[in-house]
Amino acid sequence: MNSLAEKINKMLVAKDSQDSLTQVNVKGCVIGGEQIVVIAGPCAIESEDWLKETAFKVRGAGAAMLRGGAFKPRTSPYSFQGLGEEGLITLAKIGEAMNMPVITEVMDSEDIPVVSEYSDILQVGARNMHNFSLLKKLGQIDKPVLLKRGMAATVEEWLLAAEYILAGGNNQVVLCERGTRSAEKWTRNTLDLSAAALAKELTHLPVIVDPSHGTGVRSLVAPMAKAAIAAGADGLIVEVHPHPERALSDGEQSLTPRQFSILMREIEPIGKVMGRRVR
Amino acid sequence: MNSLAEKINKMLVAKDSQDSLTQVNVKGCVIGGEQIVVIAGPCAIESEDWLKETAFKVRGAGAAMLRGGAFKPRTSPYSFQGLGEEGLITLAKIGEAMNMPVITEVMDSEDIPVVSEYSDILQVGARNMHNFSLLKKLGQIDKPVLLKRGMAATVEEWLLAAEYILAGGNNQVVLCERGTRSAEKWTRNTLDLSAAALAKELTHLPVIVDPSHGTGVRSLVAPMAKAAIAAGADGLIVEVHPHPERALSDGEQSLTPRQFSILMREIEPIGKVMGRRVR
Amino acid sequence: MNSLAEKINKMLVAKDSQDSLTQVNVKGCVIGGEQIVVIAGPCAIESEDWLKETAFKVRGAGAAMLRGGAFKPRTSPYSFQGLGEEGLITLAKIGEAMNMPVITEVMDSEDIPVVSEYSDILQVGARNMHNFSLLKKLGQIDKPVLLKRGMAATVEEWLLAAEYILAGGNNQVVLCERGTRSAEKWTRNTLDLSAAALAKELTHLPVIVDPSHGTGVRSLVAPMAKAAIAAGADGLIVEVHPHPERALSDGEQSLTPRQFSILMREIEPIGKVMGRRVR
Amino acid sequence: MNSLAEKINKMLVAKDSQDSLTQVNVKGCVIGGEQIVVIAGPCAIESEDWLKETAFKVRGAGAAMLRGGAFKPRTSPYSFQGLGEEGLITLAKIGEAMNMPVITEVMDSEDIPVVSEYSDILQVGARNMHNFSLLKKLGQIDKPVLLKRGMAATVEEWLLAAEYILAGGNNQVVLCERGTRSAEKWTRNTLDLSAAALAKELTHLPVIVDPSHGTGVRSLVAPMAKAAIAAGADGLIVEVHPHPERALSDGEQSLTPRQFSILMREIEPIGKVMGRRVR
Repeated sequence: MNSLAEKINKMLVAKDSQDSLTQVNVKGCVIGGEQIVVIAGPCAIESEDWLKETAFKVRGAGAAMLRGGAFKPRTSPYSFQGLGEEGLITLAKIGEAMNMPVITEVMDSEDIPVVSEYSDILQVGARNMHNFSLLKKLGQIDKPVLLKRGMAATVEEWLLAAEYILAGGNNQVVLCERGTRSAEKWTRNTLDLSAAALAKELTHLPVIVDPSHGTGVRSLVAPMAKAAIAAGADGLIVEVHPHPERALSDGEQSLTPRQFSILMREIEPIGKVMGRRVR
Repeated sequence: MNSLAEKINKMLVAKDSQDSLTQVNVKGCVIGGEQIVVIAGPCAIESEDWLKETAFKVRGAGAAMLRGGAFKPRTSPYSFQGLGEEGLITLAKIGEAMNMPVITEVMDSEDIPVVSEYSDILQVGARNMHNFSLLKKLGQIDKPVLLKRGMAATVEEWLLAAEYILAGGNNQVVLCERGTRSAEKWTRNTLDLSAAALAKELTHLPVIVDPSHGTGVRSLVAPMAKAAIAAGADGLIVEVHPHPERALSDGEQSLTPRQFSILMREIEPIGKVMGRRVR
Repeated sequence: MNSLAEKINKMLVAKDSQDSLTQVNVKGCVIGGEQIVVIAGPCAIESEDWLKETAFKVRGAGAAMLRGGAFKPRTSPYSFQGLGEEGLITLAKIGEAMNMPVITEVMDSEDIPVVSEYSDILQVGARNMHNFSLLKKLGQIDKPVLLKRGMAATVEEWLLAAEYILAGGNNQVVLCERGTRSAEKWTRNTLDLSAAALAKELTHLPVIVDPSHGTGVRSLVAPMAKAAIAAGADGLIVEVHPHPERALSDGEQSLTPRQFSILMREIEPIGKVMGRRVR
Repeated sequence: MNSLAEKINKMLVAKDSQDSLTQVNVKGCVIGGEQIVVIAGPCAIESEDWLKETAFKVRGAGAAMLRGGAFKPRTSPYSFQGLGEEGLITLAKIGEAMNMPVITEVMDSEDIPVVSEYSDILQVGARNMHNFSLLKKLGQIDKPVLLKRGMAATVEEWLLAAEYILAGGNNQVVLCERGTRSAEKWTRNTLDLSAAALAKELTHLPVIVDPSHGTGVRSLVAPMAKAAIAAGADGLIVEVHPHPERALSDGEQSLTPRQFSILMREIEPIGKVMGRRVR
């Protein structure tokens, strides 16, 4: 383990490589500061009405940022692939109207310009954590990046993926633990909170946790969200859908706006114990 | 997932099979009640002096129960195998003197009588979770059992292992999540707090978490302990050694008594948020 | 990797610790010699008639040894647990009548005497590979042992488990790869033939492969059996049942006697290429 | 398992969706026909001299195609990243001179044109198996594609990734099993030959195996290569380097030309048993 620590210590992501911890400013919303930043919204942008309804409600409950997928990485070519640029336009419009920064996924280096135009921070999904061409190009843009851990990536590989972006000159990187693949059948993934704690210990980057993909089970989102904050996470990204049973993807793990509102109330006192505020 | 839930619902461990949650009374110390029960002590019992020193200090810091291995499941036949019955005698003696219930592992059905004589609760280790002969015999004794999840066991298999004990007539069972095997190299295991949350959701049994084996890394014990409590765990089992650098096993993951004392102070306010007391 | 090799090289299982490779003689049937030894039979002994029918047919097809479970390690306490001693008596009787050595599993150290009385070689199942009490006691008996690899055990741990038996004085040990747990949903386990090849490279012990449990899928048994022999395995253990659709356990992966007979014809020429005979 | 089979059966990759098995013609070299196609060469193209030396020797030993990486997916941004287009030019030149079709990896959809210009078949690496943007674009080109299985991908996900290419109109797809991530420390990956056998059973596409990345250990390449052919694989892709100890990447798993030549002689009789010729 010592040799791993030594390796990380020579990297740009290493905690000791900077005098202070990195704070990532997403259009005024600071990740890695005093506030625990909660990002909420649907898995995929499906309609303007539903997105507006969701945004209105999650903002009311205390969400700091709005999520929504326009380019969707789907296992099957026959599944709903997202609305593409049309979805981006909708997302940006609602974010503007609600005064919330927005986040969406970029799946291909060719799409960096269009996603950058509409999104305030670019998400690299778990399936692209090892897409080194994409990472290199994201190192050269002037927008923050949220980097999800690959579903079978080690912590070292995850930090090296972030290093690709920092080495390119962009140090506005947020790490996101979203669960790893395992043999467990009950949950969709196995959320590895020790990876989040380790990333906090080793690097100067903010670290958030995705309890929705991390478990794939609605009833586990709240306990894992609370656990993530107790483990030291700087934020959460949570799937919320006004009508989960009709969602085109990930309905099983999406909270209703009402459930999200309860979640926000539950994490607030845990945040306070950790010296953080949620709103 | 529905079929899994249906299968569990027909079992004796199912939450709905009882009117109330099970509380396991270990010589006056109740697991599954208002108190978050913290069990502490060395991986292996090495000497009476060190065990006494540890017990004195962890009790002072708020530990409710004393742990220590006498029969040790070691990967190599050439590693220290534990002191056997001599260790059990020492453990019982110190527990008595300190007025702390004690816990130790039983590795073989033949050893049930001797371990039962000295230990207040019998631990089944991860490597024996699938030792069905042992489980059946533990179903017939009149002592509580702490059942660790196997290192590659699914939650369903873990609950079925508990079912073996309940089916035999012994419902004094505590479940313990201790990390699952993964490809991660930094940590010894990947602690799966969602399994603990799931076990709390599905069963009436108390669930505790072992952040020491669950991570294998000293610096991760405190964040994972806090996370476990925020996820709803009823207790913790933590390795504490007065001289970790000289420990015959698991030194890398053992806290010093001083570090343990800090940990206890840190988990107290998280416990309070969860409506629990730590002492 | 070098440090792993060095560690193994100091062990009793190490290839260099002996002048020649170990041959395990099971009542005249030699595992690790010129012959590729094929062990066949049902998962569990269900009735004398079915076992006799199976034995007659697999012997005719070239099987050298008869398998059948009497003590069954079942995930659920409510599944068929095997016929116990009654099953052992049946197995021994049929083996005698057919002039075939027999193999069955021992699940608990207390059962070593009774299983030794009826079985010509004792099998340690994957779930008990880390049952060190059992391994130690098997080191003291005068019967060969077949040691299956644990479902999440590393090769090093598997060889150390064998070392427990050798260190006790019993070097009549056969290693058996039977598949490891993975996230794959199509197969029951992921058969790791590189582990078998590695065990052949590092140790002097014979190594056989279980393509039935290793895949859990009938149509994959034959390709994996052929692959195992091409990878250097000394034998196979295959589940055969006269009426798989009515089997009390593992019907999905059992071959019919006719399918087994085809398998034997298919592996023969692969064996010949490897300088081995199948009968 | 039945529902998985049903799902696959509706896909373009399904065996029953065509009257005959797909043969992929790479500049005259047919994968999926009578010949077992062996692709050999260095991990990365380092110098023209070394590549020429390797090509000359592997062709002499019976290799049908030449491999060599120009764009290298490296975990660390500070590792050798490949020679890029300069490497492609070298590869094409040597392939031309030796009259061998060549294969190299494409890492990004933007690079498809340049890689297509020089390479006779485009390789998608394990880290990009879930790069759906890349897969979609490869569905629209007129070149064959070799699709490696992702390191934690299920067989279903692998076949769905191939389906992305077929759905785009390109059915010249070769599947390649290259090992999955596991907790095993001795090998770099766990080669899953049952996945290769399953892909052969379920689809009409040719399937080859990479025993070099699949094990990461030189001594295991030959046994796994033989096993792959016995399991029904249509070919192999093997790393060969004239001076493995000086290789810029993957030296530990590369064969010398002499070792490769021995390998070719060893697989020939296994191929014959399977009704195939190696040259």
